[in-house]
Amino acid sequence: MSVNVLFAATAKRWDEYREPLRAAIAEAGIDATVEIDMAPRQVDYIVYAPNSEVQDFAPYTRAKAVLNLWAGVEAVVGNPTLKIPLCRMVDPALTQGMVEWVTGHILRLHLGMDAHINATPGTWEPVAPPLSFDTRVTVLGLGELGLACAQALRGLGFDVAGWSRSAKEVDGITCFHGDAGLDDALARADYAVLLLPATPATENTLNTRTLALMPSGARILNPGRGQLIDDKALLGALDSGHITHATLDVFRTEPLPPGHGYWHHKSVTVTPHVASETRAAYSVKTVAENIRRGEAGEPLLHQVDRRAGY
Amino acid sequence: MSVNVLFAATAKRWDEYREPLRAAIAEAGIDATVEIDMAPRQVDYIVYAPNSEVQDFAPYTRAKAVLNLWAGVEAVVGNPTLKIPLCRMVDPALTQGMVEWVTGHILRLHLGMDAHINATPGTWEPVAPPLSFDTRVTVLGLGELGLACAQALRGLGFDVAGWSRSAKEVDGITCFHGDAGLDDALARADYAVLLLPATPATENTLNTRTLALMPSGARILNPGRGQLIDDKALLGALDSGHITHATLDVFRTEPLPPGHGYWHHKSVTVTPHVASETRAAYSVKTVAENIRRGEAGEPLLHQVDRRAGY
Repeated sequence: MSVNVLFAATAKRWDEYREPLRAAIAEAGIDATVEIDMAPRQVDYIVYAPNSEVQDFAPYTRAKAVLNLWAGVEAVVGNPTLKIPLCRMVDPALTQGMVEWVTGHILRLHLGMDAHINATPGTWEPVAPPLSFDTRVTVLGLGELGLACAQALRGLGFDVAGWSRSAKEVDGITCFHGDAGLDDALARADYAVLLLPATPATENTLNTRTLALMPSGARILNPGRGQLIDDKALLGALDSGHITHATLDVFRTEPLPPGHGYWHHKSVTVTPHVASETRAAYSVKTVAENIRRGEAGEPLLHQVDRRAGY
Repeated sequence: MSVNVLFAATAKRWDEYREPLRAAIAEAGIDATVEIDMAPRQVDYIVYAPNSEVQDFAPYTRAKAVLNLWAGVEAVVGNPTLKIPLCRMVDPALTQGMVEWVTGHILRLHLGMDAHINATPGTWEPVAPPLSFDTRVTVLGLGELGLACAQALRGLGFDVAGWSRSAKEVDGITCFHGDAGLDDALARADYAVLLLPATPATENTLNTRTLALMPSGARILNPGRGQLIDDKALLGALDSGHITHATLDVFRTEPLPPGHGYWHHKSVTVTPHVASETRAAYSVKTVAENIRRGEAGEPLLHQVDRRAGY
């Protein structure tokens, strides 16, 4: 029997996903109809983006799972009409993109690259940068993305610590956890990388108090969620020079409004939410595998714990 | 009996090396006198930089080895007065510095970072960069440094090839060798990293013919030696847009003269020979270990094959 898959994301995404998604599902051995428009009561699986028009799941009476195209689920996990399993997107391309953004932007600051990128012709002032051996990075959040970044930075020689709410152990990474652990993790960070989920507990993780715990001259990278930072506190710490740089990819309001202080601060680099983008060619494989699992009665990959919120 | 070690490098370096060098040699269990000035006939080991005033080794009648502080030996290996073993500097910090420079500068271009570093406030144009999986880097030269860079790039997900004069095999790296192999290695390179030694055979490895073999849009990184590139040919390829960027750390004349075309080309980044700097705290350990080996009659580390020139 044929399986009905609804693509519940924007029309723009449909152009990008239609062919690769159909191909991946066929390749997984599933005979499926995959459309952007379908009667709700006929839908078996919902391939979903939280900015979709579909916000009421009640009419999807026979649907077996919502397969999110985004890593972040905070805009859907609390939907009271959602009663079926919800799966996050975890695909190697998404993780890889994040690893590249995080390592690249740390190395830019670590190597003092800007002085060379914007050099005055004839300026020859060799200064050996510090070595990664002697440079301490703390990754806040040791989920799929945080762990991959921590391990990549460790592979490049950095002295890496990680922090998570509950205790974890990772080879080669100094692991901290809980509230007291957060203070210790920040106190040793030349660089702090924010890769926590957005939950009430993680809001304003970086605030006036926690920023003050960091060593003078520390740098912040936020490819996680805008809510993790108290923006006013960060701008204050940048003004005072206690924090020397922030590279920010995510914001409370996106696009970041042109008048926002981050755009105009000399010690801030804004990237327009590009740190980790789902790419159709890779993510359709994760979706297809979950449909195959659903049909075979196997456990779904990356299913969200709705109580924890991620 | 005490061993006499001459520090034959600049006075500026002596300030930096005096204490760490003496400490490292003592730690290796050698009772030594370490000075920047010493009667040649009393010297047992010469800790050497090729820009030293010492250019005639004949008076050093009892010296057992020249221990170079630089990775490059081309400015000393052909010295006809040199009859004793010559050792290159190989230290983890030097290799590590090179790995950081190469990966950082590739990631800068790969992520299109300049657009964000120099953004006009309010510019929000998210474009997902390519993934390293889909990006091909060729490292020319698979010595100590080239190999470490190739492996680090591979670890970050890049599709990496290497080229060396004679055949090599490296896990996870597509290896090319010889003249025909060079053409193939360049023909597949989105990025080419030059880490060959400067020898008559490697001069102008990148020239009009070989640059034309590269895919349109390719980028060049040269942290190796200035002589590896025909500068006029590279500037021509940059002007035509066939090569879209060059990041250069080494030049035929250093400091690079202020009027040189590289300073003034929009598609060139000049770094002032900082890709891999010997750092006293690390390199003294290699020197001390070789003095210990010399005194114990053990084979020296990193001894240069004077016939091959490296």
